[in-house]
Amino acid sequence: MGCPITPHVERLVDLAIEEDLGRGDATARAEVIGPVTARADILAKEACVVCGLDLAEYVMTRVDPNIQFDALVPDGNDVQPGTRIASVTGPARGILAAERTALNFLMRLSGIATLTRRYVRLVAATDTKAKVVDTRKTTPAWRLLEKYAVAMGGGLNHRMDLASGVLIKENHIAITGSVKQAVTRARKFATHTVRIEVEVQSIEELKEAIEAGADIVLLDNMTPDQISHAVAEAAGKVIIEASGGIDTTTVAKVAIAGVDYISIGKLTHSAPSVDLSLLIEEAEIPEDMED
Amino acid sequence: MGCPITPHVERLVDLAIEEDLGRGDATARAEVIGPVTARADILAKEACVVCGLDLAEYVMTRVDPNIQFDALVPDGNDVQPGTRIASVTGPARGILAAERTALNFLMRLSGIATLTRRYVRLVAATDTKAKVVDTRKTTPAWRLLEKYAVAMGGGLNHRMDLASGVLIKENHIAITGSVKQAVTRARKFATHTVRIEVEVQSIEELKEAIEAGADIVLLDNMTPDQISHAVAEAAGKVIIEASGGIDTTTVAKVAIAGVDYISIGKLTHSAPSVDLSLLIEEAEIPEDMED
Amino acid sequence: MGCPITPHVERLVDLAIEEDLGRGDATARAEVIGPVTARADILAKEACVVCGLDLAEYVMTRVDPNIQFDALVPDGNDVQPGTRIASVTGPARGILAAERTALNFLMRLSGIATLTRRYVRLVAATDTKAKVVDTRKTTPAWRLLEKYAVAMGGGLNHRMDLASGVLIKENHIAITGSVKQAVTRARKFATHTVRIEVEVQSIEELKEAIEAGADIVLLDNMTPDQISHAVAEAAGKVIIEASGGIDTTTVAKVAIAGVDYISIGKLTHSAPSVDLSLLIEEAEIPEDMED
Amino acid sequence: MGCPITPHVERLVDLAIEEDLGRGDATARAEVIGPVTARADILAKEACVVCGLDLAEYVMTRVDPNIQFDALVPDGNDVQPGTRIASVTGPARGILAAERTALNFLMRLSGIATLTRRYVRLVAATDTKAKVVDTRKTTPAWRLLEKYAVAMGGGLNHRMDLASGVLIKENHIAITGSVKQAVTRARKFATHTVRIEVEVQSIEELKEAIEAGADIVLLDNMTPDQISHAVAEAAGKVIIEASGGIDTTTVAKVAIAGVDYISIGKLTHSAPSVDLSLLIEEAEIPEDMED
Amino acid sequence: MGCPITPHVERLVDLAIEEDLGRGDATARAEVIGPVTARADILAKEACVVCGLDLAEYVMTRVDPNIQFDALVPDGNDVQPGTRIASVTGPARGILAAERTALNFLMRLSGIATLTRRYVRLVAATDTKAKVVDTRKTTPAWRLLEKYAVAMGGGLNHRMDLASGVLIKENHIAITGSVKQAVTRARKFATHTVRIEVEVQSIEELKEAIEAGADIVLLDNMTPDQISHAVAEAAGKVIIEASGGIDTTTVAKVAIAGVDYISIGKLTHSAPSVDLSLLIEEAEIPEDMED
Amino acid sequence: MGCPITPHVERLVDLAIEEDLGRGDATARAEVIGPVTARADILAKEACVVCGLDLAEYVMTRVDPNIQFDALVPDGNDVQPGTRIASVTGPARGILAAERTALNFLMRLSGIATLTRRYVRLVAATDTKAKVVDTRKTTPAWRLLEKYAVAMGGGLNHRMDLASGVLIKENHIAITGSVKQAVTRARKFATHTVRIEVEVQSIEELKEAIEAGADIVLLDNMTPDQISHAVAEAAGKVIIEASGGIDTTTVAKVAIAGVDYISIGKLTHSAPSVDLSLLIEEAEIPEDMED
Repeated sequence: MGCPITPHVERLVDLAIEEDLGRGDATARAEVIGPVTARADILAKEACVVCGLDLAEYVMTRVDPNIQFDALVPDGNDVQPGTRIASVTGPARGILAAERTALNFLMRLSGIATLTRRYVRLVAATDTKAKVVDTRKTTPAWRLLEKYAVAMGGGLNHRMDLASGVLIKENHIAITGSVKQAVTRARKFATHTVRIEVEVQSIEELKEAIEAGADIVLLDNMTPDQISHAVAEAAGKVIIEASGGIDTTTVAKVAIAGVDYISIGKLTHSAPSVDLSLLIEEAEIPEDMED
Repeated sequence: MGCPITPHVERLVDLAIEEDLGRGDATARAEVIGPVTARADILAKEACVVCGLDLAEYVMTRVDPNIQFDALVPDGNDVQPGTRIASVTGPARGILAAERTALNFLMRLSGIATLTRRYVRLVAATDTKAKVVDTRKTTPAWRLLEKYAVAMGGGLNHRMDLASGVLIKENHIAITGSVKQAVTRARKFATHTVRIEVEVQSIEELKEAIEAGADIVLLDNMTPDQISHAVAEAAGKVIIEASGGIDTTTVAKVAIAGVDYISIGKLTHSAPSVDLSLLIEEAEIPEDMED
Repeated sequence: MGCPITPHVERLVDLAIEEDLGRGDATARAEVIGPVTARADILAKEACVVCGLDLAEYVMTRVDPNIQFDALVPDGNDVQPGTRIASVTGPARGILAAERTALNFLMRLSGIATLTRRYVRLVAATDTKAKVVDTRKTTPAWRLLEKYAVAMGGGLNHRMDLASGVLIKENHIAITGSVKQAVTRARKFATHTVRIEVEVQSIEELKEAIEAGADIVLLDNMTPDQISHAVAEAAGKVIIEASGGIDTTTVAKVAIAGVDYISIGKLTHSAPSVDLSLLIEEAEIPEDMED
Repeated sequence: MGCPITPHVERLVDLAIEEDLGRGDATARAEVIGPVTARADILAKEACVVCGLDLAEYVMTRVDPNIQFDALVPDGNDVQPGTRIASVTGPARGILAAERTALNFLMRLSGIATLTRRYVRLVAATDTKAKVVDTRKTTPAWRLLEKYAVAMGGGLNHRMDLASGVLIKENHIAITGSVKQAVTRARKFATHTVRIEVEVQSIEELKEAIEAGADIVLLDNMTPDQISHAVAEAAGKVIIEASGGIDTTTVAKVAIAGVDYISIGKLTHSAPSVDLSLLIEEAEIPEDMED
Repeated sequence: MGCPITPHVERLVDLAIEEDLGRGDATARAEVIGPVTARADILAKEACVVCGLDLAEYVMTRVDPNIQFDALVPDGNDVQPGTRIASVTGPARGILAAERTALNFLMRLSGIATLTRRYVRLVAATDTKAKVVDTRKTTPAWRLLEKYAVAMGGGLNHRMDLASGVLIKENHIAITGSVKQAVTRARKFATHTVRIEVEVQSIEELKEAIEAGADIVLLDNMTPDQISHAVAEAAGKVIIEASGGIDTTTVAKVAIAGVDYISIGKLTHSAPSVDLSLLIEEAEIPEDMED
Repeated sequence: MGCPITPHVERLVDLAIEEDLGRGDATARAEVIGPVTARADILAKEACVVCGLDLAEYVMTRVDPNIQFDALVPDGNDVQPGTRIASVTGPARGILAAERTALNFLMRLSGIATLTRRYVRLVAATDTKAKVVDTRKTTPAWRLLEKYAVAMGGGLNHRMDLASGVLIKENHIAITGSVKQAVTRARKFATHTVRIEVEVQSIEELKEAIEAGADIVLLDNMTPDQISHAVAEAAGKVIIEASGGIDTTTVAKVAIAGVDYISIGKLTHSAPSVDLSLLIEEAEIPEDMED
């Protein structure tokens, strides 16, 4: 319900503001003299799912509290090229100083929401129960924001961090010795508030996981055929998630194979940014602007 | 020379570590009991330009100073799928805790270096003077790192921030009234240590910029033909940079059109991550590992 | 496996160091002139469970890296009054400056571990399956540390934060309308990696929760009799947790009533500190100590 | 005059907010959909001295600036069980997200104020000049807040940190050689804006301290009898403070023994939290709340 | 256009507030009881250029948001002794707590602006093209503020940091071998958005720099005569800057010698503070102020 | 005993490093390619008291941990022009990057120590008991460092912050009504660990202060004659401090007038920096340094 702006996100925004305008704006300093007020639009230059407008407003007003930012569409909406998604009014210097940072946030989050929606639609078209979820392969320091963008695109969120779910992977199994031992140990030691998920490479490991009492099984890098086979084997006894190398050409097949969840790293680590721009529409320039 | 790890970057890493393992690691806590030591490899799962190994080492040792991280290739090297790019030894819990964050940094920076090199090679093949440069369209809070990745990929860096160069864009011209006035004002007010660059939309604006004394002209969103025309018009009187919508299918044509610099936002805002993984090769498990 | 010293904990320690010695140490400045080296012991002045020695070492060496800190017992050990739990050697000024802050951390964490162990032993004596767990009623900014102390005392940890488990409480039910609707909604919208727990005030709500598919039911403020009744009603279909006003006089009865988990806020919000002191045993004073 | 909310306290609050809701609120996310507005009360569930309402307001509005927080009693007031101490109105999600953190602050500070008042009343009943003061045995990072709570409970504050007073303790004397030398040195080197206090273990040391010119003498761990003797010996030449192991059964005797100040570590390091709760009284739920 | 208050400056202000009033205000706590409201003036006690009023306002309202701060002159104005430069109204405790920190900022920045104006006027009187610029010899952590003060005094700013200009100094030449090689290398490797400046010690090095294509030459520690000679030699082919040991007795001669820029470290590293004071003019004291 | 490097100071250093080299070093990047190692000296270019070498070392190694920094004189020593005060060895890039920031710290602190010593010597020559002390008129965020520099110069430190001493000034008296009431109130409400100092404007106020029980009286802006008169009046009943407009021409007269302490704001707010430079003496350049 609105982009999360936690203390963590505020620290990220501060880093972003510092890196771009922490030494001042050499261009605006020369070009914009005196109290010029401007009205600008943020425009979508391609079709996309908009995401991050609250954050863009936060960035703009963090740079200059006199900026008035009006979102014109809600996060999560599909827009066509040319759509005005926000209107910005205030001191021209502040708007120009904050422009790039605000757009960079918006372009990235909208890119993730847009790509997520594409996957969600491909899966929805299969009319199966499968749901698209994200992973922890997010841009470092951006996780909360990127998971929000996935949600805005219509995807679900997998665990937020290493504490909010047990997910036993290949490396853990290498240490504990077997899927069975790993799941047994998790059942014994893990906090009772989280579920136990285990990554399996084969039908044998899947059986082992079910017997040991896993709640969720992650099928790693299997083909749609292998997945179907696994789903049949599981017979509803565990939640089934598929992951690994799934893209727009295969996601529907994976859904049809019968899984509950399809987790896709690309949603967050490889979504191209959406092209947006900020255009000054009007500027009120004091007559005596010094030359 | 080596990835910059400034106080800013350290703060970014701290945000990243906090978001993933700030509440502990529910899985490792259940699975890895007692002082298990492991040796793991970081492997390239696709061909790429490696970038960010110093940073990955910093992340790993920030999580657990007892981890020993050995980079096996230098940043900027091309590697083939399957290449071991680093070896990691130390407490299994620390390695598992830091794994995802370290990989997420490496995957992103290597992705940028890899994409940059692709553009650099396309331009190099034209045997022109053109050089590939980045933009300020970087992931907020990541600029210094991403510009480093561009450099490792063989690209050059455009200005680091709003203070390290004057770049007069459409919005500034909208305020000052004309290219001429904007450049004149910059000549008068800008710090003498930076050059003055102006974005132009037409040959007329190009002429105006040259007459007004711009040092660099940025041709915005022009076709290769328009660019050739502009280069001829400029006749060496200014440095020529082209930008806007250039991709792998057009970059060589833009180079051949005779520009000095080609700036490409995609290098940083839309580079897909490179697929890397960390695999535990050996684990020394104490006999009495409690069950 | 060692006290967690994350970036968050480091920031807490920095606040603690700043508040006590950020303006310098007026006493040591007058009393300790020249390079006096000292050896000191940290002593338990009452029987307790020791907890936080790694953190105390971190505090001491953060104040002065030349301090050598040696823990003499592992965290989680029971010790008798008079036991030396750590030995500290180094510059006397650094030791005196860090003393209070390091002890304050140790005294608090040991207090929590000690109180937890008391509850754990009372429950263990019942020879039931019941386990003692903590709550989110922790000292603000100290949660990770205090949950670690609970674990060192032998307790288990409930969810770490609002993201690592769904726990539907009275206030949520007030908004959604009924236990049933609340659980149903959680089943539909919650991340699949966490379990769904619901707080109930009566047997009716318990039944409703089970029917709606809750994973865990929290019996709020019930008497041991009511709890027995609820456990019978649940008949193993859900995990049962009891909470609310349980103290050392009632905890065994609650365990015997048949619950799986007993969560106790007092473990963290009302544990008295353990009395510890640091005593300088030897000081090497340079002859020419100025007077 | 209101709870101090300095940059330090703000950083502490940020740590607290991050640790509980930095990854979002899994429960509210599922249960509270759409713009639900709620009105809630904060209630005292036991008799106590209220403390920290400004801070609770700060926490609530830091989480969501749209929350309206109204304190219904001033800090320092005694309240009976069942008293409404604050009223909170605003977005239900924000209130639920901030609830635990705000209560945890309030419960702890109110616990300290309540315990302090108990000691203050025991001393007041003796009708002596003795005053209850705190120590530096505070929760690390919480000192300013806890000392404020002591003041709200009616106690006085001892020095705030190592810089705001000279207090020569056993360890300093071990280094300087004798009480006399220690005090002499302090007289010579300490800043003239602070008083010189020295901890003594015996009447002999007391005499030595007085002769050497101490301003305040701290009687460490003495019985009421020993204290009376010491007070007689001092004969008004120094301020007398007693400390060490004083509890509710002995504090009146110590006061009657004639001291000026009684410093009590328990006020801050072992005060049990006061039981408070937040209850939603009304919620305005939009009709179309999605299911 | 107003004093820059970036995240960096905010962090500096927080350090300043913490260091002075982070443990509270022992005097105001005793003297100002109850809600006393005051009106105070900030007065110039000597002739000066005022600088930093926005920042003083920020400091005051950061300490207490109920303070109303009204600047009575704009930054950059010359004022006479006794001039009221700001009026402050609000809670007396807040004003007294913030007074010293706010004044310390104002006194320092006004000192820099005042000294800069003195140099600027000496140069202006020569009726030459020479301009006064600052250096990187600024108070650590204060650069943005001090460069703003230089601008308010009428000076220009040299590069903001190591990234916003290439300035080859003696030490770089020691490494590269010669002025020529150093400039050539800079031409080849430096970002095209910045100019290349080189420090020279002699006419020979000046020639070498010009031949190698430097944009700006910095004459280091030359006498006015040597400078005249260098200017003649340069013949307009490069921008000429003079630096090193220039003071109020020599700056006019350097200007007359024909340079473009005169850079002066003293502007920022040795400007004496301006004497300002805050005086409470009126205080509204509640009748029942407790005694 | 060494320059204090607290968490606060570390944050200040981080701000300083970020502001100068947070975007990289454009010059060194072009000039210093490959692993060049250098040895440099830090030289005093004028006679001064050296101060801040530990801090300079901290700055250098914070920028690059491979730098070896050797202080050649202890803080507080007088040195002649040309003296080598430190030797620095390590990667040339790191040394060049850290140079300016390290020198800026050293130059400022040495400037304060040097000016302080000048005052201390003028007072010492009077052979009176008077001592030179500093004030709270320090550079915001630098107080601990600047007070250390005063101490290194031979001065004493007045209170560190608003909490470590009660100092009743004109503005407090304006609120409380009279010197007498102000002191009486302080006696009643102030922490017993600090002394009570009151600023007086006249002999009448001085008498009032003494009668009311002040510990220290601050004579504000009095002439040496007035001061003598005040000292006679005080007759040893209070500590006497003089302040306000005292400079090198008057300080000896004030000392002779019989005061205990002379506090001087100029020590910290108007000390000119000392001229220091870093010179590379040797550089080991790899043969294949790329051109």
